[in-house]
Parts: sequence; C-alpha cells; structure tokens
Amino acid sequence: MLIRDATKRDIQFIVKLVRQMVDYHQMIDKYYKVYSNYDYREIRDHYELLIKDRNTKIIIAEENKKVIGYFMGTIEKAPQYVNPKRTGVIFDAFIEKKYRKQGIGKKIFKELLEWFKKKKIKHIELTVDARNKIGIRAWKKFGFFDFRLKMRLDL
Amino acid sequence: MLIRDATKRDIQFIVKLVRQMVDYHQMIDKYYKVYSNYDYREIRDHYELLIKDRNTKIIIAEENKKVIGYFMGTIEKAPQYVNPKRTGVIFDAFIEKKYRKQGIGKKIFKELLEWFKKKKIKHIELTVDARNKIGIRAWKKFGFFDFRLKMRLDL
Repeated sequence: MLIRDATKRDIQFIVKLVRQMVDYHQMIDKYYKVYSNYDYREIRDHYELLIKDRNTKIIIAEENKKVIGYFMGTIEKAPQYVNPKRTGVIFDAFIEKKYRKQGIGKKIFKELLEWFKKKKIKHIELTVDARNKIGIRAWKKFGFFDFRLKMRLDL
Repeated sequence: MLIRDATKRDIQFIVKLVRQMVDYHQMIDKYYKVYSNYDYREIRDHYELLIKDRNTKIIIAEENKKVIGYFMGTIEKAPQYVNPKRTGVIFDAFIEKKYRKQGIGKKIFKELLEWFKKKKIKHIELTVDARNKIGIRAWKKFGFFDFRLKMRLDL
C-alpha cells in the first residue's frame, strides 16, 4: 500500500472512483444526477486542472499499481459570514469498498491534514449527504462536527 | 398582523432583524462574524437589489407598522451534481422572539411557497446551523428533510 500525491496518469483511475461516488449518491436520492449525465471529458479536464493547482492536494492510495482510494483538499476563500479569511475544504474522499476498514482513509487524511497545516489552514470543512451514515460516522472519528445542515422540500 | 411583500421602506427594519440573526449565530459559534464586522451600507444595498430582483421574493409580517418577521426566497441555478436545472432557496427566515409560536412563520412561508409554485419550482433548499435545534424543528414541521450536512474540523 502506497500513499502518495496524485499525478496526471492517475486521473483515469480517479475518474472511476468518482463514478462510484456518483452512483452511491444516486442510490441514496434520485435528486442526484446519474453518472451517464456527466461529461467524462469535463470531469477529466477538471481533475487535470486541480492536479496542477497549488491550492489543491490530491492524495491517493495505490495497491498493485491500482488507485484504490483518494482524498482531495482545496483551499478556498471562506464565506463572508465567518471570521477566517480562508478555509480548507475536502471535496472528495473515497476508498473502494473492499479496501475499507483497514485504516487507509485515515492514512490519506493524515497526509492531507499535514498539507493543510503547512498551508496555515485552521478550519477544514466538508459536505456529506445527510443520509450517508457511514460517511458521517467516519468523519466524526476524525474529529469533524456538525456545522451546517442543508434541508430540502420537494413540491 | 399584515403579511405582505417587502418594499424599499422596509429595508431599515429588515436590517434590524438581520442583526438579530447574526447575533444568534455568533452566540452558537464564534466562527461566525459579529455584526459589527459587517458593513451596514453593504447589507442595505444588498437588500435594495434583492427587492428589485424578479427572482427574489421578500415577504414580511407587519404589526403596528413594525416589521416583526420576514422570509426571503430566491430562485437559483441548481448545483451541477443534481437533476433539476433550477432550485428555490430560502436564504433568510426570521420572526422576532416575542412574536414566535403564533403561526406567523407558517403564514409567511405559505405565501412564499405560492410564489415558488407560480415560478414552477419543484425543490426548495435552505441551510441552518446544525446546532440550531429550534430552526431545524420548525423546518421539519414545514416538510423539509435533512439533505446535506456540512461538517467542520478546527485545527
């Protein structure tokens, strides 16, 4: 098991994990787009830009030359209603199902945390589907707490 | 008790309610900005623009010529990861403390809902602080459910 920064060559594998994330959310709620409604090239180009971005860090876990998980963190301008000027945001975090519960996510997260600290970030935010109990439990273990809740009404 | 659309003359009163909302959040969490760090003119100008905007509706409750509560709804481009093209968003909702539990919020909400329906909106979203139990309970009564949870870690 190797934990390392993502390179351009990893993008094709990352996109496969993105697909699994999209499919998972579509299973929770049909409100989310199905993967076939995404533009593959757009996703690929998006990650290509992110890999080059100094304010973004993509860390992957590699096993037998296969990317089996990754986390992506970005530094953003904080919303105007809060005190800090900048905030860290974890946009993606995914470990392939059969590789879960082995502490791989924790290892990737630790690396990402070091990077945020080096960048002098004091607060990290992330958004999960409110019905994704597994995800919420995992983030709580890492020290995250419930900050803001988006509610929805379907007419 | 009068429920009606906000006009430019109401803005000075709305800003007072905004202040109460800001103070409430600052009490929950020091992460939120204190009101004194807001620019009063900026807030006023912001609401002046919103009142003129065809895709925004501000509905107020008036008692003895005083604005004692208001809701603000806007129509936005939906995020790219969901199916609908447009979504309704309730950005502000506030009733002065001593006027609560009298169904005033419900009356305003009903008006706003009619407006969203006229605009062919099928989904309404809003965000509350995850620790604002009173707010969450009220929105659940109106039929809203937990959709997305933003979590935070302070380093």
